[in-house]
Amino acid sequence: MSAKHTGLSTVPGILTAGIHSGIKRAPELDLALILSTHDTTAAGVFTTNKCSAASVAVTRRHIRAGKIRAIITNSGNANACTGQRGLSDTINMASFTAEALDLKPNQVCVGSTGIIGKPLPIQRIRKAVPELVRQLKPSGGRNAARAIITTDSRIKEASATANISGKLVTIGGIAKGAGMIHPNMATMLGYLATDAEVERTALQHALKFAVEESFNAVTIDGETSTNDMVLCLANGLAKNSRIRLETSAMRSFQRLLTEVCLNLAKQICHDGEGTTKVIQVVVNQARTRRDAKKMAMVIGTSNLVKTAMFGQDPNWGRIMAAIGRASVPIKPDRISLAFDTVTVVKNGIGIGIASDRAAKKVLRKREFTITIDLGIGQGHDRIWTTDLTPAYVALNAHYPT
Amino acid sequence: MSAKHTGLSTVPGILTAGIHSGIKRAPELDLALILSTHDTTAAGVFTTNKCSAASVAVTRRHIRAGKIRAIITNSGNANACTGQRGLSDTINMASFTAEALDLKPNQVCVGSTGIIGKPLPIQRIRKAVPELVRQLKPSGGRNAARAIITTDSRIKEASATANISGKLVTIGGIAKGAGMIHPNMATMLGYLATDAEVERTALQHALKFAVEESFNAVTIDGETSTNDMVLCLANGLAKNSRIRLETSAMRSFQRLLTEVCLNLAKQICHDGEGTTKVIQVVVNQARTRRDAKKMAMVIGTSNLVKTAMFGQDPNWGRIMAAIGRASVPIKPDRISLAFDTVTVVKNGIGIGIASDRAAKKVLRKREFTITIDLGIGQGHDRIWTTDLTPAYVALNAHYPT
Repeated sequence: MSAKHTGLSTVPGILTAGIHSGIKRAPELDLALILSTHDTTAAGVFTTNKCSAASVAVTRRHIRAGKIRAIITNSGNANACTGQRGLSDTINMASFTAEALDLKPNQVCVGSTGIIGKPLPIQRIRKAVPELVRQLKPSGGRNAARAIITTDSRIKEASATANISGKLVTIGGIAKGAGMIHPNMATMLGYLATDAEVERTALQHALKFAVEESFNAVTIDGETSTNDMVLCLANGLAKNSRIRLETSAMRSFQRLLTEVCLNLAKQICHDGEGTTKVIQVVVNQARTRRDAKKMAMVIGTSNLVKTAMFGQDPNWGRIMAAIGRASVPIKPDRISLAFDTVTVVKNGIGIGIASDRAAKKVLRKREFTITIDLGIGQGHDRIWTTDLTPAYVALNAHYPT
Repeated sequence: MSAKHTGLSTVPGILTAGIHSGIKRAPELDLALILSTHDTTAAGVFTTNKCSAASVAVTRRHIRAGKIRAIITNSGNANACTGQRGLSDTINMASFTAEALDLKPNQVCVGSTGIIGKPLPIQRIRKAVPELVRQLKPSGGRNAARAIITTDSRIKEASATANISGKLVTIGGIAKGAGMIHPNMATMLGYLATDAEVERTALQHALKFAVEESFNAVTIDGETSTNDMVLCLANGLAKNSRIRLETSAMRSFQRLLTEVCLNLAKQICHDGEGTTKVIQVVVNQARTRRDAKKMAMVIGTSNLVKTAMFGQDPNWGRIMAAIGRASVPIKPDRISLAFDTVTVVKNGIGIGIASDRAAKKVLRKREFTITIDLGIGQGHDRIWTTDLTPAYVALNAHYPT
């Protein structure tokens, strides 16, 4: 692959395309296709939202059924809260895509993102599929990345390679999501592909781990969409010896997949219009890792904390209040709290005006870290969040439905 | 009592005062005292925040100990995250107040609200207490109400009377809290007094019920402060036969207490600067009442829903997405959703453009109700929330610490 390529275009045996089909206003791309030239092992992680869209139900079933070869995705319409008609539209979308590619319907995954509650313009999609298939090429990753975004301001692509069991393995991916500003369109989609040969359970395990460490460690507004999904296809063209659970090859692969997912997740975090800061929240010395993540999320979703960060106000009282309401065991007099390297709270008490002043300088940065040490255990985790700005509110209030 | 009195000034045997002691800038009132001329039965409901303030620890202990006679409260300083010094400041505050009133220290409750992490100016408070005691009078309720507020734009008083077991019983109260805009000062304090004679367990039970139905049913920004408390003193001057659990008198008293608390809670909801709307969220036909409240709270704290309400956008897709992520059992195809009387979703599907347009008119109102029918059970509950506005963010970002 040439150096200018990233994302899906770096992965051997992966063809991609993105075109305008008429869901969004011309000439915006709104239909994406990812095809593996060879059979794959596939894994998927899906939204936990109980009002999940038709695409989530159908894709989950197809992943379970077996050998996925393609993923078709439309943007501009989520096909959620659309009842029985929505479900048959998605089933049809898989069927006519399969037909055009000479596959079985359950070899095709379907993703949708966009407005909730409006019927999918399925005939436009049907008419566009032949052209979409004609456009498939190894270097189409950028077009696919563009065709899955909604109001994202940037496309999101990432890739990485590593030597695994003596073979060069590539993982590439694309994602969409900008959280903050995108009312009905807050959906997060992530599509990964790799030429590694991976045993099915191992792939599912690695993807779940990677998503937990990346997409699930990024909070913009605490919402979970009806359409979120992250899929990974592994076509085995690297000819490595098949990666299995609990091997060192598995650990290497999982690390590589996590790296690509985290790269994409951070791009999502940076792409909230209205956002002026990306803040890492680290919780150390919690009783358990789960406690650490729970507390980091409570801090990272606190409107009072997020507005203070926008205002560059090292208001640690708000963070202490969030720590106290996180339903996680703590001993208040053991807590310390720092902005980057500037400690402002020790043994649960503020250090003083000089450290508050030093912290104020840290908060001028576009990226910084809030570190909380709880002093009661070994549990550690971290998440990324953004500030909450008047622009977020204005953009979400006036989004036309 | 004359008709112009409300709040604590309506309650026989309750003396009140509020003065300036020097915590806030003169001439703002910052020190309040409530005294019952007779022994009381007392009950308290406290913040669940684990970083709770010294005042919460001390008052909880005193309530447990027995016969409360007085409540002293300072505003402008929360005395939270202040360690051992903070604790002894609060203990001293109870002691010198008791001395001035010729009471035992554990007959005095202490409340504090204001900035977190700064030491309490305890000497100023000590010096001011004699004057505070001199100011005590039956009609001092308004001054007390004024002395406990921080950046609230209005004082909050309420009262109600009812015939219970043939005697006229009065409940009056004051509260502070404006949630949205008040960074370190988001504390909610509620002080109720009644001349009813109530058995202790019954009073605690009634207060807990009333708080759950009122203060705990109001969400502005989902935060729980380090200093929240609601106290109720019952001095028995109405000479009713003592109210006990599981009697019809108990039900009447509990209803009356809930009425006063709900009145105060709604005043808090209306007092968020930056707020333009108060929205009731009703969930019907959930599996359980707990499920109904949980879902109503998820909807009521969703930034995407709250910004849409500010934008007067009947964006029910965001509400459906919140319903789906509430971790409450649902059947999506049984859900219906209405703004006031305008149904926009039936059987989980949008009704159409005409109803969306009618809903848009409802959202222009300053107060309206979102009703969700889940169609799977008998569980019902409701909460009140506000919209999320650019003013909220701006005010919280630029609050000086």
